Amino acid sequence: MMSYTLAEIAARFGGRVLGDPGVKISQIATLERAQPNQISFLTNRKYYAQLATTRAGAVILGEADADATDLPRIISANPYACFARISNLLNPLPAIKAGVHPGAVVSATARVDASASIAAMVTIGEGVEIGAHSVIGEGCCIGDNVVIGEGVRLYPRVVIYHDCVIGDNLIAHSGVVIGSDGFGIALDEGRWIKIPQIGRVVIGRDVEIGANTTIDRGALDDTVIEDGVKLDNQIQIAHNVRIGAHTAIAGCVGIAGSTTIGKYCQIGGSAGILGHLKIADHVVISSFTLIGKSIREAGSYAGIYPFSKTDDWKKSAVHLRHLDEMSNRIKVLEKMLSKQESMKGNAE
Amino acid sequence: MMSYTLAEIAARFGGRVLGDPGVKISQIATLERAQPNQISFLTNRKYYAQLATTRAGAVILGEADADATDLPRIISANPYACFARISNLLNPLPAIKAGVHPGAVVSATARVDASASIAAMVTIGEGVEIGAHSVIGEGCCIGDNVVIGEGVRLYPRVVIYHDCVIGDNLIAHSGVVIGSDGFGIALDEGRWIKIPQIGRVVIGRDVEIGANTTIDRGALDDTVIEDGVKLDNQIQIAHNVRIGAHTAIAGCVGIAGSTTIGKYCQIGGSAGILGHLKIADHVVISSFTLIGKSIREAGSYAGIYPFSKTDDWKKSAVHLRHLDEMSNRIKVLEKMLSKQESMKGNAE
Amino acid sequence: MMSYTLAEIAARFGGRVLGDPGVKISQIATLERAQPNQISFLTNRKYYAQLATTRAGAVILGEADADATDLPRIISANPYACFARISNLLNPLPAIKAGVHPGAVVSATARVDASASIAAMVTIGEGVEIGAHSVIGEGCCIGDNVVIGEGVRLYPRVVIYHDCVIGDNLIAHSGVVIGSDGFGIALDEGRWIKIPQIGRVVIGRDVEIGANTTIDRGALDDTVIEDGVKLDNQIQIAHNVRIGAHTAIAGCVGIAGSTTIGKYCQIGGSAGILGHLKIADHVVISSFTLIGKSIREAGSYAGIYPFSKTDDWKKSAVHLRHLDEMSNRIKVLEKMLSKQESMKGNAE
Repeated sequence: MMSYTLAEIAARFGGRVLGDPGVKISQIATLERAQPNQISFLTNRKYYAQLATTRAGAVILGEADADATDLPRIISANPYACFARISNLLNPLPAIKAGVHPGAVVSATARVDASASIAAMVTIGEGVEIGAHSVIGEGCCIGDNVVIGEGVRLYPRVVIYHDCVIGDNLIAHSGVVIGSDGFGIALDEGRWIKIPQIGRVVIGRDVEIGANTTIDRGALDDTVIEDGVKLDNQIQIAHNVRIGAHTAIAGCVGIAGSTTIGKYCQIGGSAGILGHLKIADHVVISSFTLIGKSIREAGSYAGIYPFSKTDDWKKSAVHLRHLDEMSNRIKVLEKMLSKQESMKGNAE
Repeated sequence: MMSYTLAEIAARFGGRVLGDPGVKISQIATLERAQPNQISFLTNRKYYAQLATTRAGAVILGEADADATDLPRIISANPYACFARISNLLNPLPAIKAGVHPGAVVSATARVDASASIAAMVTIGEGVEIGAHSVIGEGCCIGDNVVIGEGVRLYPRVVIYHDCVIGDNLIAHSGVVIGSDGFGIALDEGRWIKIPQIGRVVIGRDVEIGANTTIDRGALDDTVIEDGVKLDNQIQIAHNVRIGAHTAIAGCVGIAGSTTIGKYCQIGGSAGILGHLKIADHVVISSFTLIGKSIREAGSYAGIYPFSKTDDWKKSAVHLRHLDEMSNRIKVLEKMLSKQESMKGNAE
Repeated sequence: MMSYTLAEIAARFGGRVLGDPGVKISQIATLERAQPNQISFLTNRKYYAQLATTRAGAVILGEADADATDLPRIISANPYACFARISNLLNPLPAIKAGVHPGAVVSATARVDASASIAAMVTIGEGVEIGAHSVIGEGCCIGDNVVIGEGVRLYPRVVIYHDCVIGDNLIAHSGVVIGSDGFGIALDEGRWIKIPQIGRVVIGRDVEIGANTTIDRGALDDTVIEDGVKLDNQIQIAHNVRIGAHTAIAGCVGIAGSTTIGKYCQIGGSAGILGHLKIADHVVISSFTLIGKSIREAGSYAGIYPFSKTDDWKKSAVHLRHLDEMSNRIKVLEKMLSKQESMKGNAE
């Protein structure tokens, strides 16, 4: 395993070193578990007490905590990003084994860059293009005429339907499905008719997609995922959705058809967004919240039923069906009292 | 690409033509993007203004909008269904390459119709039957004794467990799992014992199932999906559920065990239905709504916490735990006032 | 098909026989469908009336119902567990076909026990260990250095990423992904940087995982699933979660990163648990409930918006955004009335 001195690390990533700059670092770890050849970090105040007991060889701290320990340390304006950069240095991706596994089935009309890696059990359709240094994991299925950029990494068993376009550096985890048909049906004399889904999925650069997430192709126009979007596991993105650049979405979120989400949004786990809406840039949506109309203003939005002991919940929840009546009863009381007051006023 | 005159299209699908019946149409597109050789449609009033600027060669309109443009047009009683039919005409499915790919592993006891197509990386178990013109996509796995009808289309990496029965014309998208074990466990002296799941999944005709949707086999009796049911992506259907004919369910819905859903229901995205319930025919359930008891009457049902700015939500949500107390305080006020009023009455 | 007398069955599982102990039983079935060579059971009072009409050859009953029928019967202290045990006796798993299918791709450095079964289209990475009597279904992909115990059963198309550790007797259904990267990203000057996910997933003994469930590997430390945990379909478990022994989780639940769940918990379908929380042992969480803070006490918890007809829901829901104002109006009324009362008191 490679190791670096604290000074070398700081030189790469721009932090300020306090304490011994020569300490050798070969891995990153939590304060609780770090060993003397490892660097740790404090980005969550919950773990402050562990600074006193950690066996880490060095730590990454924010400016405010610069003197919180005597350990060798890097002081950074953004310690979490610094941690991420150092971890990437210490944990490089495994080298790519260029070439096509003999057990893969690759169409004669596909163009696969010589530096790309195609694993066993992969199928690649007609007219497919795969760029330099891209890795197609075991059992992936790439449909006809898909275009895949450079530096893409598909983990095992990703499916990409025909005609989709995948930008450079996409990371897609196992079970991801890109380009499946959107849910387009029309009721005609008591029967649903399927509406052909003839758009594509177009994915920008530097996107990551979590395990078992699904992205449907457009009905007529395309479904679009812009540059730098980060999607967690088991997200469902319906046809003709557009997700703005650098938006991050946590697991189990569902986004209905034709909705447009702005740039730099953050959407919490299991949230939902109905169809044909527009969400502005820099919107933060809480977990478990359904967005039922467009959001035109940046900011933080929520709609979560607070949990409690089941007995207490039952006592409260029963009144929810009677809020309108409750509101009316308050109005009646207000009128009665206001009438009394005015009668008193008259009487005085 | 095939093209048709407007008159030919109307002759097939029964609409009334206004304007030049000879205009040639080869594709369908949105009003915003349509070209002169394409037909568009107006089914959502939001897009009405685009009628004035569209470059489409023709449009599909409802009776009420028959005179809303001078463009060549088909006037239809159900323009959305008309659009669906025309799109199917203009976008036929690719031709089936009949035969078994040499890279597939097909049991010697399986009976595959000569007109069916079995792609690479497919495995087909013992005693399986596959009907005419069915397509089994790359990497699908068909368990022992599965019976698959005619005209079925399985996209890559669908899994069907042993003994399940699949009706004609099923479309199942990538990642679908049919016939996995239901969640049947019994607690016995502090340990969960697994209950063998010995039922099947039985699917009727003309069903579509979206990507990564899962349908569990029955515990003892079967799980049943009736004719014409349309399921979106990432839906979970538990053991012994029955879904009535022509019901449509949007993405991410979960349906718990032994629940029966009627015919022609529509269930919104991320909704949930608890187990052992009965839902009547023609019930509409909103997105994000949990159905916790049976619904015996057709109609529309909802239970969604409305979202707002997070600060406003916090101010309101904190009272939810005290609704019962709030209700009691109103009652006290009502009693006090009613007592005052009756005293006043006595005094007068 | 094997058959057993009622006496033989009771001798194995410890119940008390009433009626003819010689009746032969070869399968288990519901009261409604059971035949004379089948045993049925009553574990849900809803089905009590069916006892009178069932054609079952025998039934399993609790002590309280010992005399509810004249049919041959086993009286058990835990009839549901008794049913489970009898069903396991009557429905043994199919025999394992030991050996490696010639269509599998197994690394030369993998150690596969001779009694294990490796199906077609499987890929097994370097340094993998697979224990005795384990079954790796069609199309599974096992990453480098994964260790799989004995008696494990992976259904088709399970993916296990590198370095994960799988205890004895795991059952994992199709589409399960174990060890995908957690959702770790840090924002740095307007770009998300990926945080390498270098922990593993470590799974104890006797665990079951439902179809299309995903379990992310740890960011630094491991994600841990303890012994006897039962997970339904389409569950998302984020990085560094720990799930305590014998906890059961229903479908579509999402658990965010670094949360620790106790032993013997039960979590209802589509519930959610936010990150960095601690849930005590023996906690029951209702379906569709979001747990937003730690739970330190055993018990039952809920937070569900009750559904109603959509028109009624609209009337109530509109007040949710004004609960704070409603509360304040009640306070004003209380003050006014209290002032009146005290003035009256003074006046008297």
